[in-house]
Amino acid sequence: MSDMTSHADAPRSPGRPRSSRADEAIIDATLNLLAEGAKIDTLSIEAIASRAGVGKATIYRRWPGKEALLRDALAILKGTPPTPIGRSVREDLVLLLGAVGRNTDPRSEKIMSCLLPEVNRNQDRYELYQGVVEPRRARVREVLERGVRTGELRADLDIELALALLTGPMLIQRVLRWHPELDDDVLAERVVDGVLEGIQPR
Amino acid sequence: MSDMTSHADAPRSPGRPRSSRADEAIIDATLNLLAEGAKIDTLSIEAIASRAGVGKATIYRRWPGKEALLRDALAILKGTPPTPIGRSVREDLVLLLGAVGRNTDPRSEKIMSCLLPEVNRNQDRYELYQGVVEPRRARVREVLERGVRTGELRADLDIELALALLTGPMLIQRVLRWHPELDDDVLAERVVDGVLEGIQPR
Repeated sequence: MSDMTSHADAPRSPGRPRSSRADEAIIDATLNLLAEGAKIDTLSIEAIASRAGVGKATIYRRWPGKEALLRDALAILKGTPPTPIGRSVREDLVLLLGAVGRNTDPRSEKIMSCLLPEVNRNQDRYELYQGVVEPRRARVREVLERGVRTGELRADLDIELALALLTGPMLIQRVLRWHPELDDDVLAERVVDGVLEGIQPR
Repeated sequence: MSDMTSHADAPRSPGRPRSSRADEAIIDATLNLLAEGAKIDTLSIEAIASRAGVGKATIYRRWPGKEALLRDALAILKGTPPTPIGRSVREDLVLLLGAVGRNTDPRSEKIMSCLLPEVNRNQDRYELYQGVVEPRRARVREVLERGVRTGELRADLDIELALALLTGPMLIQRVLRWHPELDDDVLAERVVDGVLEGIQPR
């Protein structure tokens, strides 16, 4: 929930608690509408307010507009990524990649895969998507940078490429269910080891 | 077009050419309806016939049902993958992976990304999807198996995992536009080299 809190209600006095029930209802209404097939372009603050059982003013008191609300809703949908432990790069990569696409909210698969064609259509939307994806990418990036410093990873490592090499297989398998023959239980471990070691003979 | 031909109209006498114009109109109508947001569950042969300007019987003469038609339509949408050259495994992998998500048909992105939540909902649909994906996977698999035989790849290579390691980064970047900082022009080459060599020091 930290993403929402920080975004929506920054200066908060202890004597005046925010209406978290309304916030939750608004977020929930947004996610339900998206999961039911609402398109970002046509989804209105009015429809969200009506679904949440609040007035439009209640939404606008908390979010400047639809984009900010969507960004918070998607961040909450995706949840908080795990925190690296810091012992070995391999272990932390397995931890972070194991969480990719592991979302217990059943709305996630529907919303995230159908969102893309829409998101890719315009620049604002693309930034919205990046705003949701980038914090998770940053966490893996930190582990990779640490690995370069400690010598666990190649000194000439292309960090952005390595991010894609690690995340790609997890996402296609967990979000697109790309390959039925790949066992999912140990997938993160196998992907990390495969990318660490490479497929050429050493 | 070979997938459609083999599927739809196997025994064909040279003196009696199939009505390829009707076939094309039917396939085209199917893809247009999908790209416009038609759901597989509710898409009807009737709607396709009407959009294509043919009778339902014309469709049923060529395809036993909706699943078979969808399978052909998606195979045609995705096009034929390139043929490996056979000099080096690296070169063939770059060729095959360079073609991933490189679809000039603008309907492809819309159809393929929004298809997944639907496809994953039931087993028949999943097999339909696999039927479209598997032939492309098979082509990469052959190159990997050849690499193990020639010693260009590790003797203990897990082929199915290697497929995911190579395809995953291409798909998230080309279909999901996952990371704006990754240059696309040389992506296939960088992914192949990254996966061949690994990210650990050698």
